[in-house]
Amino acid sequence: MTYYIGDVIKDERILIVRTPEQFEKTGIRVRVRTTVEEIDPDKGVVRLSDGDTLAYDTLVMATGSKVNIPDIPGVRQEGVFKLKDLRDALDIKAYIKDKQCGHGRCRKAIILGAGFIAMELSEAMKNLGLETSIVYRGELPVKRWDEEFSKIVLDKLTSNAIDFVPHRLPVAIEANGRESTLRLITDNGEMEADIIVFALGVTSNISLAEQIGLKIGNTNAIMVDLSQRTSRDEIYAVGDCCGVYHRIKHQWVHMPLGDIANKQGRIAGANISGHSMTFPGVVGAQSFKLFDLEVATTGIDEWEAKAMGLHPISTIIWGTPSARSMSKGRKVGLKMVADKSTGKLLGAQSVGEGGAVAKINTLSACLWGGMTLDDVGYIDLAYSPPFGGPWDPIQVVAQILRKQM
Amino acid sequence: MTYYIGDVIKDERILIVRTPEQFEKTGIRVRVRTTVEEIDPDKGVVRLSDGDTLAYDTLVMATGSKVNIPDIPGVRQEGVFKLKDLRDALDIKAYIKDKQCGHGRCRKAIILGAGFIAMELSEAMKNLGLETSIVYRGELPVKRWDEEFSKIVLDKLTSNAIDFVPHRLPVAIEANGRESTLRLITDNGEMEADIIVFALGVTSNISLAEQIGLKIGNTNAIMVDLSQRTSRDEIYAVGDCCGVYHRIKHQWVHMPLGDIANKQGRIAGANISGHSMTFPGVVGAQSFKLFDLEVATTGIDEWEAKAMGLHPISTIIWGTPSARSMSKGRKVGLKMVADKSTGKLLGAQSVGEGGAVAKINTLSACLWGGMTLDDVGYIDLAYSPPFGGPWDPIQVVAQILRKQM
Repeated sequence: MTYYIGDVIKDERILIVRTPEQFEKTGIRVRVRTTVEEIDPDKGVVRLSDGDTLAYDTLVMATGSKVNIPDIPGVRQEGVFKLKDLRDALDIKAYIKDKQCGHGRCRKAIILGAGFIAMELSEAMKNLGLETSIVYRGELPVKRWDEEFSKIVLDKLTSNAIDFVPHRLPVAIEANGRESTLRLITDNGEMEADIIVFALGVTSNISLAEQIGLKIGNTNAIMVDLSQRTSRDEIYAVGDCCGVYHRIKHQWVHMPLGDIANKQGRIAGANISGHSMTFPGVVGAQSFKLFDLEVATTGIDEWEAKAMGLHPISTIIWGTPSARSMSKGRKVGLKMVADKSTGKLLGAQSVGEGGAVAKINTLSACLWGGMTLDDVGYIDLAYSPPFGGPWDPIQVVAQILRKQM
Repeated sequence: MTYYIGDVIKDERILIVRTPEQFEKTGIRVRVRTTVEEIDPDKGVVRLSDGDTLAYDTLVMATGSKVNIPDIPGVRQEGVFKLKDLRDALDIKAYIKDKQCGHGRCRKAIILGAGFIAMELSEAMKNLGLETSIVYRGELPVKRWDEEFSKIVLDKLTSNAIDFVPHRLPVAIEANGRESTLRLITDNGEMEADIIVFALGVTSNISLAEQIGLKIGNTNAIMVDLSQRTSRDEIYAVGDCCGVYHRIKHQWVHMPLGDIANKQGRIAGANISGHSMTFPGVVGAQSFKLFDLEVATTGIDEWEAKAMGLHPISTIIWGTPSARSMSKGRKVGLKMVADKSTGKLLGAQSVGEGGAVAKINTLSACLWGGMTLDDVGYIDLAYSPPFGGPWDPIQVVAQILRKQM
């Protein structure tokens, strides 16, 4: 049998569902533009914003997350945006396209924050023709990655004429009478912009959960078990609003990523419909693209391993995404972290113009299988010169680390 | 520490070695253009083609493989080539560039065989401007892959104006007085060409090994153990001339691939220098590129699983190498094979314009770790829209197969 991938699997058929109407055809009732105002868990009833009430036997909390917005003056004025959902994206695009700023079209953008969303957004802004600056409190972008790799990301920003402004905390946003429409006041000077977008991360949206006394984990997300059940048996939680078990950290973490939310949704659905299923957790795999640069990571970094009481060893090597003769100067860096006493693989990071995500996916599978450096050092990969050398950096790093044990 | 990848690791430094002179600097003596004519294992001596003899305590056989050439008339004449080493490649290029054929420059190429070398060679020939035909005894190219994927490979040949001529056995090659310089006689008609290249696979070169009575495996390659030792303790064998342990087939196979040879060389070297090491074997990962098509496989296919007495289940799905909205019509197909009774992953194949090799490397790691469909169905991968959807075909196929158990 041959299947095509879609979004809803029902009765083993995969249905591609895009609109509320298509959803309804699957037998699922969808109410758009409706909010749950209150939950009465003892009666098993939710009260909706349109005045209706709905009774439930089982309730799924999928309340997602909310964008972190600093508590400074001026964050609500025109030209200041968050980027959370499709509506935000459409609003930002419309503003850039249509808004008449002091000097005509919207021209200058400031992005606050330097995580992966800020990186993706800076590329999008640049591609829309805006002068783009990233303003960040720290020294280097994408702090989940090793400094050596963060510097590669910084170089990629710079070579694409995106201005990275480190060591700045936003203090206020003011309307600007002059050439640009906005002024960002920081603890270290002022900058002008026509549009400012917050990309300072997200926090679980747990207000409804708190209202009814669901247990909240130490990651400030709804506490769930491996079946996605909350502290009340009849209430499940999935996605950005709840925690997820990290198999390498051996603890519950908050990792608001789309693929994890999808998995949790399916696990909850299976359990609710009577098919026992548990979520095996995550190893922390994550990636983003910045122009032609792939940036990816999985597992934990050295400092996280130390915090767990482990004795991490790590190294970085630079290889090529194809055999050296075919790589046209492109490079791919790979960092691997392992435990010195057991040789267990703990994490990996990769950055490069091609091949980085593939390496991290392979190493995520290795982490998933609990492999050691001995396992990884001679792992069998599909070698061919257009896709790498006969020794993949994966094997080389594992062998180098093995000698440090 | 940051390393750059090279070819020789010595005292934990990685040295890039390209010429005999560079090798000698590492302290390794290299004799080029010298053949071993005879081995006297009882005296521990080899006799060289230049008359010298060399004494050894330990001997490593790395005699490689030889190209399969059919036993038909005319295979030794000008314009007929094999493609095994750098010399062959240089000879072919020089012939194509310089040879004056009947109509001027060398214009028409025939490749005999339809494995991955034939595919790579056809692309190279086409890129050199030749009219290129592939002549093959079977119906479809690359028989290691599922028919559905072989057809994709065939389409890629056809759309690049490479002529695939199935169901033809070569009978003779003759000099041609007319427009082209050669004539290929087959069991089903004749074809003209200026150059004919054999790509019919290779066979282990075991003549020296047989001479001294080393045990030969049932794959017609030198029998070795996991330490790369032959049936004589002081003689090791590595690379195309010897067998390799296949972890999924649970038997020794002949798999003449460059990455495997590299690994075996290092294992033998470690053991010879007193560091006990065993080769963990292979899962059969392999890949090649054909124009913009990636083709890869790992593990075993259904028919091989059946031959082992297993009960394989399998399916193929088609996904996209990026999120659907970013894929510009590009597709990637994934086949997965698992055992019905245990759910153990047995193999996978992938073909697509991007992403196929990456998927197979991830699944090779899963095979390496002995994972089941339950492990693979919810594996944590580095999701981001430029690199795929939130459900990777890897997870989707595993879940579909899980329901067939």
